[in-house]
Amino acid sequence: MTDEETEGGASAPTTGEEAAFEAGIKFGSLYHQFAGTPVSPSSAGSLATAMEEAIENQPHCEDVQVAIREDALAAAIDDAGADYVELTGSLVDVSMRIEYEDVTVYTSMAMQDGYPLMQVDSVERD
Amino acid sequence: MTDEETEGGASAPTTGEEAAFEAGIKFGSLYHQFAGTPVSPSSAGSLATAMEEAIENQPHCEDVQVAIREDALAAAIDDAGADYVELTGSLVDVSMRIEYEDVTVYTSMAMQDGYPLMQVDSVERD
Amino acid sequence: MTDEETEGGASAPTTGEEAAFEAGIKFGSLYHQFAGTPVSPSSAGSLATAMEEAIENQPHCEDVQVAIREDALAAAIDDAGADYVELTGSLVDVSMRIEYEDVTVYTSMAMQDGYPLMQVDSVERD
Amino acid sequence: MTDEETEGGASAPTTGEEAAFEAGIKFGSLYHQFAGTPVSPSSAGSLATAMEEAIENQPHCEDVQVAIREDALAAAIDDAGADYVELTGSLVDVSMRIEYEDVTVYTSMAMQDGYPLMQVDSVERD
Repeated sequence: MTDEETEGGASAPTTGEEAAFEAGIKFGSLYHQFAGTPVSPSSAGSLATAMEEAIENQPHCEDVQVAIREDALAAAIDDAGADYVELTGSLVDVSMRIEYEDVTVYTSMAMQDGYPLMQVDSVERD
Repeated sequence: MTDEETEGGASAPTTGEEAAFEAGIKFGSLYHQFAGTPVSPSSAGSLATAMEEAIENQPHCEDVQVAIREDALAAAIDDAGADYVELTGSLVDVSMRIEYEDVTVYTSMAMQDGYPLMQVDSVERD
Repeated sequence: MTDEETEGGASAPTTGEEAAFEAGIKFGSLYHQFAGTPVSPSSAGSLATAMEEAIENQPHCEDVQVAIREDALAAAIDDAGADYVELTGSLVDVSMRIEYEDVTVYTSMAMQDGYPLMQVDSVERD
Repeated sequence: MTDEETEGGASAPTTGEEAAFEAGIKFGSLYHQFAGTPVSPSSAGSLATAMEEAIENQPHCEDVQVAIREDALAAAIDDAGADYVELTGSLVDVSMRIEYEDVTVYTSMAMQDGYPLMQVDSVERD
């Protein structure tokens, strides 16, 4: 069914759609694998590095950049009156480059209007 | 950058690519949220239902079907010499329908050649 | 080393300490397995049931009760301006009964002074 | 209920039991937070460091040592015919030191008879 027309107006995905699907898998994986991890200013660096290197293992995932947002982390810890908090989307900026066949997909997660938004930034076709 | 041409041959994603990206996010989320959950024949049903209803909360996710593969689960428990195992991709079949603007994406995860494979089955454009 | 005296003032754990260790494992498991799961009023029931049945698979875990706090969930969703939120400790009350050899440990997680607190409520020795 | 006798033969936990409960929470947290993470020989080091530093944020957790078992990882990757696998208990050795009031609990997770076993190694009372 992936290589040819299917009934009812449905068709096989394009290479660009398959590439974007792969990119989405990586974002969902990164987020739900690591959300909830205890994080503090002193452990933020090792967590970001581990997130990058773990997800870069996945197929087609050529580059992952993770930055813990220091100001947001400090504010969250202050709010909680604690020494650490659990990782959530509001504490992290992520960008990834996925290469699938002849398509490269650039994606990112960043805060927008107070909420973390995952999106496809651009698609490059060779 | 998502609405117009970008430099270097990169362009904004199509609606189909954005829809496929959303579909991928749901697969990665489902897999990495629930992988590792203790599961046995008696708890498989409640886990499958919770997985479906949890992921259906996410935006654009219209339908999720999860089936724990009973034979594979029984075999894994037998191999482990235990009463339960931790959920892995080899124990579960998943299909999802994502609706994003005027595009519907049908996706699934199933065993192929001994490994779980997530894929876009077809894309329907209204 | 678990059955006899060790050097330096350290000794083997008592049966009560081993039972309490088992109880702690279950709490950490339940929390970090399911924190981050998308949850809404309509999916809260299936999630609570799956959490109970999954953790009851673990050794020595005789009973798990999970209740999603409906008012807290509604308030969190309202705050987020969304249809769902990700599960956190502030949204759930948990109690567990662990039986290990001749010791029964009763434990719970509930809100105290605005934070979720996991604790051993009582220990029963036959 | 934690500070006095309760009905039916149950009593408040001892300090040693509370300390062991805290130790168990850390093991369950570490395991279920990170199980399922994609790991390869090149990413094993950063994952181990992140696991240690993340869990050391938790209360009463004075030291965490995580070592990915290189031989087991290489064998698992070989078995899978892949470049990486998902982290499971059979790939990692863990030891932790928990200090709670005047009690120190030493715990570890290691393979025994083919299965990962979490246990309290010894308890030190000042």
